[in-house]
Amino acid sequence: MTGGRVCGDENVVLSNVAPVDKALPGELTFLSGAKNYATHLESAKTTRAAALIAPEDAPELPLPSLRLKNPYMGLVKALQFFFPEEKPGYLIHPAAFVSEDADVAEDAIVGPMAVVEAGACIGSGARICSQAFVGRGARVGRNSLIHPGARILHGCEVGENCIIHANAVIGSDGFGFTLDNGVHIKVPQVGNVVVEDNVEIGACVTVDRATMETTRIGEGSKIDNMVHIAHNVQIGKKCVIVAQVGISGSTILEDYVTLAGQVGTVGHVRVGKGATVAARGVVTGDVEPGSFVSGFPIKPHSEERKILAALRKLPDLLKKVRDLEKQLETKE
Amino acid sequence: MTGGRVCGDENVVLSNVAPVDKALPGELTFLSGAKNYATHLESAKTTRAAALIAPEDAPELPLPSLRLKNPYMGLVKALQFFFPEEKPGYLIHPAAFVSEDADVAEDAIVGPMAVVEAGACIGSGARICSQAFVGRGARVGRNSLIHPGARILHGCEVGENCIIHANAVIGSDGFGFTLDNGVHIKVPQVGNVVVEDNVEIGACVTVDRATMETTRIGEGSKIDNMVHIAHNVQIGKKCVIVAQVGISGSTILEDYVTLAGQVGTVGHVRVGKGATVAARGVVTGDVEPGSFVSGFPIKPHSEERKILAALRKLPDLLKKVRDLEKQLETKE
Amino acid sequence: MTGGRVCGDENVVLSNVAPVDKALPGELTFLSGAKNYATHLESAKTTRAAALIAPEDAPELPLPSLRLKNPYMGLVKALQFFFPEEKPGYLIHPAAFVSEDADVAEDAIVGPMAVVEAGACIGSGARICSQAFVGRGARVGRNSLIHPGARILHGCEVGENCIIHANAVIGSDGFGFTLDNGVHIKVPQVGNVVVEDNVEIGACVTVDRATMETTRIGEGSKIDNMVHIAHNVQIGKKCVIVAQVGISGSTILEDYVTLAGQVGTVGHVRVGKGATVAARGVVTGDVEPGSFVSGFPIKPHSEERKILAALRKLPDLLKKVRDLEKQLETKE
Repeated sequence: MTGGRVCGDENVVLSNVAPVDKALPGELTFLSGAKNYATHLESAKTTRAAALIAPEDAPELPLPSLRLKNPYMGLVKALQFFFPEEKPGYLIHPAAFVSEDADVAEDAIVGPMAVVEAGACIGSGARICSQAFVGRGARVGRNSLIHPGARILHGCEVGENCIIHANAVIGSDGFGFTLDNGVHIKVPQVGNVVVEDNVEIGACVTVDRATMETTRIGEGSKIDNMVHIAHNVQIGKKCVIVAQVGISGSTILEDYVTLAGQVGTVGHVRVGKGATVAARGVVTGDVEPGSFVSGFPIKPHSEERKILAALRKLPDLLKKVRDLEKQLETKE
Repeated sequence: MTGGRVCGDENVVLSNVAPVDKALPGELTFLSGAKNYATHLESAKTTRAAALIAPEDAPELPLPSLRLKNPYMGLVKALQFFFPEEKPGYLIHPAAFVSEDADVAEDAIVGPMAVVEAGACIGSGARICSQAFVGRGARVGRNSLIHPGARILHGCEVGENCIIHANAVIGSDGFGFTLDNGVHIKVPQVGNVVVEDNVEIGACVTVDRATMETTRIGEGSKIDNMVHIAHNVQIGKKCVIVAQVGISGSTILEDYVTLAGQVGTVGHVRVGKGATVAARGVVTGDVEPGSFVSGFPIKPHSEERKILAALRKLPDLLKKVRDLEKQLETKE
Repeated sequence: MTGGRVCGDENVVLSNVAPVDKALPGELTFLSGAKNYATHLESAKTTRAAALIAPEDAPELPLPSLRLKNPYMGLVKALQFFFPEEKPGYLIHPAAFVSEDADVAEDAIVGPMAVVEAGACIGSGARICSQAFVGRGARVGRNSLIHPGARILHGCEVGENCIIHANAVIGSDGFGFTLDNGVHIKVPQVGNVVVEDNVEIGACVTVDRATMETTRIGEGSKIDNMVHIAHNVQIGKKCVIVAQVGISGSTILEDYVTLAGQVGTVGHVRVGKGATVAARGVVTGDVEPGSFVSGFPIKPHSEERKILAALRKLPDLLKKVRDLEKQLETKE
């Protein structure tokens, strides 16, 4: 199933998967390649588990093991096997409201108190959970999962195999006003949001619709909880955006960009392909492809680290300079 | 309709409004006065659009144009014209729950799965979208729009012509406890929130009710997504609060204050009329009216910029001081 | 009722509780022991209130007073007395959806448009408000209050006497992926969240379920609005977490920890018992029990304050060092 190499007894029967220090007899466990690898390896010698997923190059172990280049992929497959997704016993729940002008695939699921408005389109195998909302003319692609309370507002599109977590909002109005005699006049936000295939969007995320045209989240991008994405933002393919990031209007993230937790961007900047912005950074200008930047204003991460280290010496430096000044004065 | 001056053919028939580089034949486009003005002007020479909204002082252009002092106001009007708000084909939807003790105007709209509790009052022309909530004794004023999943909790008031975006929460409890023998005892939060007229509140915003009395958001203020407003905060008229700002308890913002993205305030401070706090600033004390401040702790923006520039020289400065010390030592 | 000592007329009849400068004749007011104590004391001399709650050691006052060691506890009791919680006139509302396979206590309340799925368990005296969600196999303990739009997702547990505010999400998936040939593969998140007794969780908070096992929020902890708690986090007992904090995966907070507003933590760190992290701090490593830390990276608060003070002298310091260099040059 996982394509790895088995070391030891091939006929072990397994009942569950659990961490190495918690697994019970009969369970499968795993050795991650992560930073706690050494500790895990130690635990593996005393685990009660019946078998173990391990990196290919792990030392010999006292229990049958499945060797994989990427043991995490083995864990993913084991978790999928032991915890298959549960489907409810209904398709369109009688307590849902689905407009007769909506186009819902025959095998799609719509939970109680969910709303699917006129002109909306729900693809085959998609699931609109309890109390979720799919607005007028919005589309949810095949096999996508819209969790309870998530809102796909009018005219927005979610691709195939996407996951939109609870209470996320796709398609709120962009924050756009023009001043007319000291009064903020709302610029109508008439664009939409397109979420491409294989995207995951966290709980309580907000993605604003474009003023005109489209706010876009590229194929395979993964967005953590409570991220704010403003109007007209363009997010490339396979980006990773960690919790509580805020992306200002018209920002462009090229493909494979990573924004760590609580990062912010000013508007109208471009973050180049494969660039990473470290946690809490503020993207104050364009970022070179492939670079690793941090701080406020943004700068190469190595420079930021030197500055942060130097800062701890600053109070002492003030004293030193005062001393130097005195010494020079004395000499004069 | 927009009150501007027409240059060129007055009889052009227009079908849509779109950005200058995307407009199709027969469409209206616009030249903004913003930072990309030069680029836009260049695009205007080759646009396929049939007509253009431009600033009064723009150069002569190869297509009919409407000249306005504030071309954005022309864009606003064009967007309102080409994208009129769609009203649903119902008033109180049969799948809504409206208490018989609620007072809902004859022409108000209440969407499916929305809840309007006893004693609530919904004004003429107001719209409570699908799955929104208006609690016991709460009020929503004339022509206000409450988006899907927004919660106007018991006793809170929303004025006229307001927009409350999806999944926003108006009237959650303030975060108030008193320690009694090492245990945090909840201080009941019995006040409310008043949102005055013409206010817009973004998706997933939370506004806490006052402990006693009222948390207030002043007339015409605009609040972006995911802003947190704590109990007893007083926000003046026509303030602008950008995404992910956090405002601590009992903070006072006077009129016309701007807080840029991800700003925080400590509690019990006053931000003076017309002051601006730059992005990520932390308001650690009172802010003078009309000032432009930033950083943590808060200081004049010009000072903060000098500090940030100086910071990049700090690692080098450490070396220089070490050199100076050595030189002085050698001399002795 | 409050256990204090009465000074003056014991037979005053009171109709409400209000702040000292706003109270009307016949109302009760209070003198807090907080930072505005002196101002409050002055107001107490002219208040129209009929009686006053005051600290034991307050001076003699011109109106009857109730003397308490912790006057806030008196305020809590007065607020509870004058503002008793209103219960709706139904138990399970006809517009709720409760699975016939759910176990709902006889005296529990379930509001309109709420959903309680199969296998869920709602304890005695608990209240699931309008449009709230309790998923498959989830549990809500005795006397807990789940506000409108809050989501207790499948398999998660909320203890007794808890309050979960509007639109909070308990049990969203952790943000876990493994790279397989440049593609992010989702690691199934099959654990849950356990919220112990007496916990309060703010509006729009998100708590992710553990990858395996449990994300835990300890007894009596209080969490403000819009806090993000990642998968596998362990929060101890009686912690206080202020608004917009982000806690990364597998972080451990021991008991009595305080995280002030907008704090962030990197993953896999431990914050020791009773430690406090000041607002906006970034917990970049383990924190000693009982310590008071701040900044990014985290350091003793006293050190951070010295650095912030020194920073304001940095631009001037650059000039001074340049001068010193010149002086030395001249001397050579």
